[in-house]
Amino acid sequence: MSGDRFLGLSAYLAEEGARVESALARAVNRLHARLAPDHEVADAIRHGVMTGGKRLRPILCVSAWSACGGERTDAAYDLAGSLEMIHAYSLMHDDLPCMDDAALRRGSPTTHRVHGEDVTMRAAAVLIPGAALQALEACNALGCPPERSRAVAKALMEASGAGGMVGGQWLDLLGEGRVLGPDELDGLHRRKTGALLAAALVMGAIAAGAEPRVREALERYGRCIGLAFQIADDILDATASAAELGKNPSDAELDKSTYVSLHGLDEARRRATSVVDEALAALDEAALDAPALAALARYVVERQK
Amino acid sequence: MSGDRFLGLSAYLAEEGARVESALARAVNRLHARLAPDHEVADAIRHGVMTGGKRLRPILCVSAWSACGGERTDAAYDLAGSLEMIHAYSLMHDDLPCMDDAALRRGSPTTHRVHGEDVTMRAAAVLIPGAALQALEACNALGCPPERSRAVAKALMEASGAGGMVGGQWLDLLGEGRVLGPDELDGLHRRKTGALLAAALVMGAIAAGAEPRVREALERYGRCIGLAFQIADDILDATASAAELGKNPSDAELDKSTYVSLHGLDEARRRATSVVDEALAALDEAALDAPALAALARYVVERQK
Repeated sequence: MSGDRFLGLSAYLAEEGARVESALARAVNRLHARLAPDHEVADAIRHGVMTGGKRLRPILCVSAWSACGGERTDAAYDLAGSLEMIHAYSLMHDDLPCMDDAALRRGSPTTHRVHGEDVTMRAAAVLIPGAALQALEACNALGCPPERSRAVAKALMEASGAGGMVGGQWLDLLGEGRVLGPDELDGLHRRKTGALLAAALVMGAIAAGAEPRVREALERYGRCIGLAFQIADDILDATASAAELGKNPSDAELDKSTYVSLHGLDEARRRATSVVDEALAALDEAALDAPALAALARYVVERQK
Repeated sequence: MSGDRFLGLSAYLAEEGARVESALARAVNRLHARLAPDHEVADAIRHGVMTGGKRLRPILCVSAWSACGGERTDAAYDLAGSLEMIHAYSLMHDDLPCMDDAALRRGSPTTHRVHGEDVTMRAAAVLIPGAALQALEACNALGCPPERSRAVAKALMEASGAGGMVGGQWLDLLGEGRVLGPDELDGLHRRKTGALLAAALVMGAIAAGAEPRVREALERYGRCIGLAFQIADDILDATASAAELGKNPSDAELDKSTYVSLHGLDEARRRATSVVDEALAALDEAALDAPALAALARYVVERQK
């Protein structure tokens, strides 16, 4: 990767990240107002949503929206923020005592360690309808016709539910302490990480009124970088310390199958590169001039945390 | 209440209840297929959704839909079933160890006592996007234009979220061990029970394309019977045994404020009758010929469990 391109992407991630943070702050304030006088659940939502993260899903959503001709208005970031609300709910759930029982997330205490289990559970549950409403309202503000709003909400709820994230979480738990086959591992991550990442691209494309060919290419791109993201996570887990990653315990400590444990470090690296190439090919096929999406695909496997 | 009218309502509840059960069985099977191979979460969903209950919310939804000219097709019951999926999620959450820690619900072991806490939590979380998708798909099958589908999904998500149920749950927990004022108690139940009951009516009305005047009257009716329902619950808790109600512990045992503890039994009964009269007046004002809704309003306070 050339120094120039890296500098370009760094600035892009910083600028886009800042606009996503503002959108999330607006979203949390809206939920806070609706929850009044329930400030405890609102505080837990703020903790779960506002304590960092790469904001990759919203950045991908706005990048797809923009690649399809959409303007980067606040409402576009509000739409994108709905994905991060779902992502935050899933992390809050994953960290609970009856799940991973994690003490740290991104170097900070997990939400339930600060606000308790019951409050965190309700905060997480509020984020799901909250995200659906946020997506519907943002589509409205973007001037999407109702047909598109409906399709956007449907994509978000499909990725959040039975066929998406939650199915993948189960496969993940099932994998603790036993060796998954390569297809099982792919299937797990296609749902656990891939569904919401692909939805980020699809939602941006639908909202912008992209033609089906372009929407499908962006979905394929999303599924590929979802897989690349997970392989890269496994490589980082195997090569970096918990302190560097700011989280614990790692999947390796939980004795889960990872791309590294299953295929070895070299083969895992080769696979990551290969799915990123597939993602780039999907952009080319749809003749999408999207340098940000191309750079993001490479970033997903080259990031250091 | 005359014997005739009671017989009429009994048959109505039985017939409508049976059609709701079929719709819920279809919904659970669809989730089961989407969750495959995660049969454990699917089983927990089945347990939480299919173990009885009055099915009042779906019956109210179809009654409103029908009063506004809709046909009682399977798709109408599918739409109505989305409300029961949200209701079921909220009960599964309420019963968890970190909430009420309940062992029984409707005379059966609670979902987490059968399937464990982690599985129940994920099952409950699947029901929220599952309900949103169910409502969107049912609207589609009913031939609703996208504008109506969007409004129906919005009503369901608003009732399920920050401004609805979850805010009410917090007020409920806050009320354990201290005396709430009359306004606080009304505010609690307006959100905890009332929001979803009102949404049942509103969703039926919107899907059927009712004019705003009719929709608002049905919403008012819904809010009134939501309150009546809660007052009746408190009266039943104060006068019936746990075995008769098939659940425990009661709000009185948890030392929560109830309409009976706050106002006494006679005044609570008077209030229940008065809000039912308000509900009936709302139907009259909108000139709705809806004998089922009128009978349901009376049933809400006259039921024995």
